[in-house]
Amino acid sequence: MCELLGMSANVPTDICFSFTGLLRRGGLTGPHKDGWGITFYEGKGNRTFRDPQPGAHSQIAEMVRNYPIKSKIVISHVRRANIGKIALENTHPFSRELWGQNWTLAHNGQLKGIKKRKLNFFRPVGTTDSEHAFCWMLDQVYDRFPQEPRSLKVFMALIEELFLDLATLGTFNVLMTNGEYLFAYCSTNLVWVTRKAPFGKAHLIDADLQVDFSKEAAPNDIVSIIATRPLTSDESWNVMFKGELKIFKDGLIFNSKKKGR
Amino acid sequence: MCELLGMSANVPTDICFSFTGLLRRGGLTGPHKDGWGITFYEGKGNRTFRDPQPGAHSQIAEMVRNYPIKSKIVISHVRRANIGKIALENTHPFSRELWGQNWTLAHNGQLKGIKKRKLNFFRPVGTTDSEHAFCWMLDQVYDRFPQEPRSLKVFMALIEELFLDLATLGTFNVLMTNGEYLFAYCSTNLVWVTRKAPFGKAHLIDADLQVDFSKEAAPNDIVSIIATRPLTSDESWNVMFKGELKIFKDGLIFNSKKKGR
Repeated sequence: MCELLGMSANVPTDICFSFTGLLRRGGLTGPHKDGWGITFYEGKGNRTFRDPQPGAHSQIAEMVRNYPIKSKIVISHVRRANIGKIALENTHPFSRELWGQNWTLAHNGQLKGIKKRKLNFFRPVGTTDSEHAFCWMLDQVYDRFPQEPRSLKVFMALIEELFLDLATLGTFNVLMTNGEYLFAYCSTNLVWVTRKAPFGKAHLIDADLQVDFSKEAAPNDIVSIIATRPLTSDESWNVMFKGELKIFKDGLIFNSKKKGR
Repeated sequence: MCELLGMSANVPTDICFSFTGLLRRGGLTGPHKDGWGITFYEGKGNRTFRDPQPGAHSQIAEMVRNYPIKSKIVISHVRRANIGKIALENTHPFSRELWGQNWTLAHNGQLKGIKKRKLNFFRPVGTTDSEHAFCWMLDQVYDRFPQEPRSLKVFMALIEELFLDLATLGTFNVLMTNGEYLFAYCSTNLVWVTRKAPFGKAHLIDADLQVDFSKEAAPNDIVSIIATRPLTSDESWNVMFKGELKIFKDGLIFNSKKKGR
């Protein structure tokens, strides 16, 4: 099993505080010692830091933890290997380009029989079930929409259909983004919290660290954090139900049925 | 214009020494202040560190410079923007997956009219001519070989044909790899040196730094470094001629016509 962390914000925001909590679970307060990774979006571009070393003891993770990269979308993952050896190519998040957009996925769980699903264009570099599932999903999207569909409703419905399909194969807690929307699908464990004015204080569960967001954030900032388990002890985390998909954009939950493009 | 740096080695080797020299040209001893990037291959996996900030003053570059990531193939680039604004998505190297392999390219030069070439599957995320050329090339490769060709000779001939074609559009000094072979194509400026036993000392041109490779390297180590201009003052750099393609594998020049797969 693994743990996930995602962020969606309306202004470029650093994730140092939450990432500190997640990293401690990478071999210190948690058993997820088989690698870690984090992808930051800055405009259309993104950058991923990954290491097959335990997150709690990684020099690169230490740098990322202390260097406030500001981003509107972040996906991160600490890994406890089950399918696929400990290696850089098996370390989440995985990325691919589709429609001139950077797509990124991180997955928690196992998908039985996923490797029997035939792939066409997108192919895994490593040997995880997660990367195979990601490639299969992108193949399906590209097969139906060689160009980005105009209808957001149709697009979102397809993503949900693919998530539901994959979830029939096992445990599929997943964070995925195309750089604009952050998709969070809950198969067993996923929680989220939105931070906005009036801001309060928060304590990390996994480290003796507290932040007073009223001093850090501007009045109009809106930031949602999604994680496998709550990262702070004094905020009201919303527990997602099994089979639930939440789509975040600019820090808020996005409803594709209500809004046009 | 920009500067390129590549490495091919027969054992995982760190590039800290050469990267230090290149980084100084990123805004200190050279004018290439519009971003920098470096891609390391470790097995089939790779990791890229990139920053639209000047390399000479980047905190992430400082970390990479001091942290000895060991790799058999490295491609790096410092940028002076001409086509495409200064942004993360326009920062080399660019990467795509093809045939389940991570492909990476960095380019020095300008290609007139490249954006008129139609793209099919691979599409640029940013607005540089370099990324467009990379996508066009991968489209051509995939179009002719949806699966990796069995004949290495045929494969290498196609890569050379595509390089020669792109070079007709302007200046096209390029480093490209699929994780196994490092392709170096010279349109105007590219030099290389192979370090192997008996090892000697080398001084950087751009920094007061010297390495004694006889103390750093093992007797059987073979490392080739490719760069836009020589990085050291006391080694015999081989100057590539215009229109020349050199393919490196495991630190040595590879001749696809001589060897079977």
